[in-house]
Amino acid sequence: MLLRRFLISPLIFLVSMHSNPFKQLQVNLSITAATIALLVTVPSMAHGQVNSTTTKSASSNSKTSVVNISITEADVLAAQKAWGEALVSISTTYDEKGIAAARTLADNIIDKAYAYQSGLVLFKPTLTSGDQTFRTTHKGALSYFVGGDSSFPKDTGFALKGWRKVEIRNAGIFIVGNTATTMGNVILTDKTGKVTTVDKTWQFIRGGDGKLRIILHHSSLPYSAK
Amino acid sequence: MLLRRFLISPLIFLVSMHSNPFKQLQVNLSITAATIALLVTVPSMAHGQVNSTTTKSASSNSKTSVVNISITEADVLAAQKAWGEALVSISTTYDEKGIAAARTLADNIIDKAYAYQSGLVLFKPTLTSGDQTFRTTHKGALSYFVGGDSSFPKDTGFALKGWRKVEIRNAGIFIVGNTATTMGNVILTDKTGKVTTVDKTWQFIRGGDGKLRIILHHSSLPYSAK
Amino acid sequence: MLLRRFLISPLIFLVSMHSNPFKQLQVNLSITAATIALLVTVPSMAHGQVNSTTTKSASSNSKTSVVNISITEADVLAAQKAWGEALVSISTTYDEKGIAAARTLADNIIDKAYAYQSGLVLFKPTLTSGDQTFRTTHKGALSYFVGGDSSFPKDTGFALKGWRKVEIRNAGIFIVGNTATTMGNVILTDKTGKVTTVDKTWQFIRGGDGKLRIILHHSSLPYSAK
Amino acid sequence: MLLRRFLISPLIFLVSMHSNPFKQLQVNLSITAATIALLVTVPSMAHGQVNSTTTKSASSNSKTSVVNISITEADVLAAQKAWGEALVSISTTYDEKGIAAARTLADNIIDKAYAYQSGLVLFKPTLTSGDQTFRTTHKGALSYFVGGDSSFPKDTGFALKGWRKVEIRNAGIFIVGNTATTMGNVILTDKTGKVTTVDKTWQFIRGGDGKLRIILHHSSLPYSAK
Repeated sequence: MLLRRFLISPLIFLVSMHSNPFKQLQVNLSITAATIALLVTVPSMAHGQVNSTTTKSASSNSKTSVVNISITEADVLAAQKAWGEALVSISTTYDEKGIAAARTLADNIIDKAYAYQSGLVLFKPTLTSGDQTFRTTHKGALSYFVGGDSSFPKDTGFALKGWRKVEIRNAGIFIVGNTATTMGNVILTDKTGKVTTVDKTWQFIRGGDGKLRIILHHSSLPYSAK
Repeated sequence: MLLRRFLISPLIFLVSMHSNPFKQLQVNLSITAATIALLVTVPSMAHGQVNSTTTKSASSNSKTSVVNISITEADVLAAQKAWGEALVSISTTYDEKGIAAARTLADNIIDKAYAYQSGLVLFKPTLTSGDQTFRTTHKGALSYFVGGDSSFPKDTGFALKGWRKVEIRNAGIFIVGNTATTMGNVILTDKTGKVTTVDKTWQFIRGGDGKLRIILHHSSLPYSAK
Repeated sequence: MLLRRFLISPLIFLVSMHSNPFKQLQVNLSITAATIALLVTVPSMAHGQVNSTTTKSASSNSKTSVVNISITEADVLAAQKAWGEALVSISTTYDEKGIAAARTLADNIIDKAYAYQSGLVLFKPTLTSGDQTFRTTHKGALSYFVGGDSSFPKDTGFALKGWRKVEIRNAGIFIVGNTATTMGNVILTDKTGKVTTVDKTWQFIRGGDGKLRIILHHSSLPYSAK
Repeated sequence: MLLRRFLISPLIFLVSMHSNPFKQLQVNLSITAATIALLVTVPSMAHGQVNSTTTKSASSNSKTSVVNISITEADVLAAQKAWGEALVSISTTYDEKGIAAARTLADNIIDKAYAYQSGLVLFKPTLTSGDQTFRTTHKGALSYFVGGDSSFPKDTGFALKGWRKVEIRNAGIFIVGNTATTMGNVILTDKTGKVTTVDKTWQFIRGGDGKLRIILHHSSLPYSAK
């Protein structure tokens, strides 16, 4: 049913009055399948996430339907929490199932939590440098999190470092309609109890599943005067 | 002078039929001239309007500053109410002070309530037709409201028709971050008690005084089958 | 493959370190299937539509990737054209295949061209009146286009009236980032050559297929002084 | 006075090391005080910046007015360039006129280039740490740039370090309607020829003078493995 919806409906506009629409539909099915496999990845809203209310207007007796697709602070906090849980899940999967499982999981997490499908994410991980500082592609992000990519020889897999707890302390959140930006500290605890604190900025837009996706991620170690 | 501009202009909407608006209006006229000549007319936020809060983050002990410049339903209802009050104020001013005062007031109201400074407003008034249906310029809007412009010979001045009460019944409000759109009925009552109902759509963005401005206004008489 | 992507990936965040992730994945599959059947309907961008370029920065030697998900004028003109073609396709399908085929087609078109999945569309069709003026639901829109719904007894099916040509004359287009609004005349020609002109406003946001969707549609017959 | 405000304030960034900035600055100071006391600081558009065109619609003979208030790549590059020039101007003013002049200039620059009037800027400067890492207030930003604030005892004045050249190498730019985000390297050269490279992220919205303002600024020294 879902499949039908996505495969068939984009064709509607192409149906011509001069030809048999069924033939076109069949032709288009394969095209659409390919297209959809690639994309439809950063929607701005989904039924469950939209703030949809029926309120009584201040200036009338009638009921007013209100739909507001702006991002809320709650959306932002949920997305941050999900990022932390995802990092811990990769670390734990690595420890319990090995690198292949961790890599598969990381690959899926990056697909869902970041907006690489848009063509670009502004990602400056904590521990990258030189020509490979900015990871604007999915491949570069995956290598940072789980390593093992010969194109990025310095990557050792940040998500494999035994993380067990992630705490987020926001200094501020700035919401501009359909995008939200946060800045603050993220405090990571590994399985030995060692704590690492980073300065982190994220910017989100809504993703295809109605949850927020990261379009910007700048992480840095705290400055210490020498 | 700058100080005066921002202190005085928000009052335009508050001009009451029970007080003499002239003194304030004259001060404002020259300011408005300067404003239009130059610049900067549709800001997205102002100190007083921004939703700025300090909340306790769900995931931390620290205080988080949150600034959200999205438009709220309350912003929208206030802008609609102001439009209704402005229309009544022009009608009342016309009845009590004559056409010159009404025109001056209308001119100022259009400056404050609409976004013509951007270069375009999508305005389809209730009673326009033919080549002059769409009033995409300030001049066209002013003529519609108070008439007397030989370029628009059919305009008789909609705001001069003795309006005393404006009720807004929203069917729905759709908010997309920094813009909001409403659709519903507006019920106008004139000084003889006669009621006129129109189907009306407005779209707003934030204006230079922090209040919303109209970038779209489509008004039409109810359809009746012949 | 598409199916796999949408079913599996939303679960990633739920994978716990304390349990076998595979069990959760299976449980979640059904939930996700239901969820997705309902929604994921108004994405803000898709691979093909985003303006993604690699430019040489004015201030540097390096290549800069630029992704811009704002709506363009070309997006807007394409969406308008698609609306006209869709209307003609329903009329033609009705004439050639009958009401059942026309209704199915209209149902699909409304799903793709409008944003009812968001919970609300601000739709004031040309020929509606009274309590049924505003069609804020999919059901109300479908009835307007093809009739046959006893809840809307006055609807005779606007899209069944033999339309063969739709011309759009925009008076103006106002683009505010991720939403765009148009106002102008739409000139409809039926199979007898009869021409109908309406005053029409549309507002769009990006839909799940990367094309624009209508969140506002206000159509009215031209005003004529009696 | 209003006229003066808009004529003068855009010049702040242009203040050259070869001219006496004091006269202009003094005029501007009082204006700025009034501005901050009251209001309206981050507009979304200004006459000169809006992309307003009259195009021939693809589907009609008529002229269409198009207003697009989305941010462009050119807007972003101009704002980055202005930031670099402003930093150099503070350094040069300090060297030539002393700390008082540098402080006054920095104060004005922060007012124009950042969006502190909104109530929040997400600013993580390159060299801050501990409880004072995030400078979400104007006071904190001013101290970082010119020092001398006992509330921030570690600040030595980043903008006083003899900067003479700023080069910006963007890795990517992500534009989401009315906001734009950049990430890349900024290469600073001081008067002795010493070069410092930082990893820098900025996010902008439109400011009251039509130019972009910074709502996010995360700067960090490149990571180096020990």
